[in-house]
Amino acid sequence: MRLATIGFGNVGRALAILLAQKADELKSRYQLTFSWTGALTRTAGGWVAPQGITALEFASEGWPAGAAPRQSWPIRGHAAEFITACPADVLLELTTLDPVAGQPAIDHIRAALWAGRHVVTCNKGPIAYAYHQLQALAAEKGLALRFESTVIDGTPIFNMVESSLPATKISGFRGLLNSTSNYVLDLMSAGETLEVALEAARRIGVAEADTGSDLEGWDAAVKATILANVLMGATLRPADVERLGLGAEAMRREMNRLRRGRTLKQVVECIADAGSVRAWVRLEALRAEDVLAHLSGTQSALTLRTDTMGDLTIIPGAGGPEQTAFGIVADLVSIAQKLDQVH
Amino acid sequence: MRLATIGFGNVGRALAILLAQKADELKSRYQLTFSWTGALTRTAGGWVAPQGITALEFASEGWPAGAAPRQSWPIRGHAAEFITACPADVLLELTTLDPVAGQPAIDHIRAALWAGRHVVTCNKGPIAYAYHQLQALAAEKGLALRFESTVIDGTPIFNMVESSLPATKISGFRGLLNSTSNYVLDLMSAGETLEVALEAARRIGVAEADTGSDLEGWDAAVKATILANVLMGATLRPADVERLGLGAEAMRREMNRLRRGRTLKQVVECIADAGSVRAWVRLEALRAEDVLAHLSGTQSALTLRTDTMGDLTIIPGAGGPEQTAFGIVADLVSIAQKLDQVH
Repeated sequence: MRLATIGFGNVGRALAILLAQKADELKSRYQLTFSWTGALTRTAGGWVAPQGITALEFASEGWPAGAAPRQSWPIRGHAAEFITACPADVLLELTTLDPVAGQPAIDHIRAALWAGRHVVTCNKGPIAYAYHQLQALAAEKGLALRFESTVIDGTPIFNMVESSLPATKISGFRGLLNSTSNYVLDLMSAGETLEVALEAARRIGVAEADTGSDLEGWDAAVKATILANVLMGATLRPADVERLGLGAEAMRREMNRLRRGRTLKQVVECIADAGSVRAWVRLEALRAEDVLAHLSGTQSALTLRTDTMGDLTIIPGAGGPEQTAFGIVADLVSIAQKLDQVH
Repeated sequence: MRLATIGFGNVGRALAILLAQKADELKSRYQLTFSWTGALTRTAGGWVAPQGITALEFASEGWPAGAAPRQSWPIRGHAAEFITACPADVLLELTTLDPVAGQPAIDHIRAALWAGRHVVTCNKGPIAYAYHQLQALAAEKGLALRFESTVIDGTPIFNMVESSLPATKISGFRGLLNSTSNYVLDLMSAGETLEVALEAARRIGVAEADTGSDLEGWDAAVKATILANVLMGATLRPADVERLGLGAEAMRREMNRLRRGRTLKQVVECIADAGSVRAWVRLEALRAEDVLAHLSGTQSALTLRTDTMGDLTIIPGAGGPEQTAFGIVADLVSIAQKLDQVH
């Protein structure tokens, strides 16, 4: 399976390492070997190597050095040309999120599908803003569009629902989807100020420099949109997700008001009600009986409301670039298995 | 897909109803229709109808009445003949557990595989006592042996690991696998006596008449054996699972000793250590930080230790014959999808 990537940062590096580490298992268990035929990044240019380099070469030699002959590729603004020119089975869209419109990732994915490439992305933007259109295009072309790693770092959600919850109707969900907010609230409940807590979140790599999107619920709203549109057939835009009483000031106020025995968390919830789907993000003072109250600040969780298995909760222990990379591997294996089915 | 069943009780009835309810979805989404070609039960005899009756007929008319022509089948002791004579794609092994040796279910499954039938079972016995042999026979015959509903009532565990955790090594697990014990402990912590709690567990249908297997950890040991052998490649027998300080007397004693803020649960744990796998069941006084401490008595939970996603926890909300039946449907869909792959 030949991979081309747009965007190559922490996740891309973790993916190259994981594919190298798991090469034997992927080959023996799934008859799968991977090669990289090209990469394009916004800041460092790109390369195309039609004959491909191995994950091991990519992982150990770093980017863009290496032994295989490559063409240098012009930087930025040439994504569509790169996608068309780079021979690949799968395009990995690993650029960072543009939270306002999901671009240019939507264009990258569209170009890849037109060029006959399957697509795997961990970029929330295109799935939150254009899932139904992109999925329709992929279906029309007989190609796969997969995005396990867009919500909770590669935790099996979309793959699990698709393969292990057949004929199941999902009527809602509830969860903790933003680590930064919940890590900060955790430290605040231990007596830290919001500023100190934010600094700590940045230090351990949970938070980016700009945490507005986290604290204001925008990150959670984007994830809720993806879950609602993919799992419940909704047609929400991120702006449709109600963000209720969020932000730094609200966090301070609610923490001061918090009653003994309660835990303050940023909670996402979604319900299908009389044909329409409503979703919101808010601060909740969780009771001790609530399992979500007992997760540490960095832990995410998702409860799916189903008509077959009741409320099904999944809680990953770890989250980070390695887990995001793992979700991409799960998507790649899933594509390979569907290809086997077709041929 | 033609189904024959050995054993037809609460789970069989729930399965017939679920297949009838989900018939449209199973047909449109998976191109799957089901018919029942026969049933054999220990107490009520059996029938074979080569042309099959629909799930709707089976669910609405009950067993063994119905319009389709059927042969009456001799009761008990004719399982192998029934399996061979009844034309079917899948044999459902739904008899109740014999905890000592897994028989006669192992013989049923072996006969079905020799007769060229795929097998789906919710019976813990054969998987706990003979997983590796039965799986090897199934593989040799090119047939599927599936058993999602043997552990936590149809919660996606085996299907999830198989389809959504590729190339993942599972090095251990921990969880709550016996509802009766944990429901009883829940009521005891609220001040009830063990006897009253047991009676309540029977009344709500969590416990059977004989609760020795639950309180003594035998039920949990059987499930731990299945998880260890299937997910970790171990070769445990249920007797190899250490059952430490269990039973009614131990429950009373530990409850009296329990410190404030702790919760007493029957916990199962398994670790792979230097090539060998060790598993045990015991009463644990869980700290408040432990998510398992905050589950209600009837809730099960399983945490898988993985090398790709860290500790992954799954908690189903509901458990009962409907969920067990759902796990069987998930297994049937999975078999159908693999068949598509082959043809």
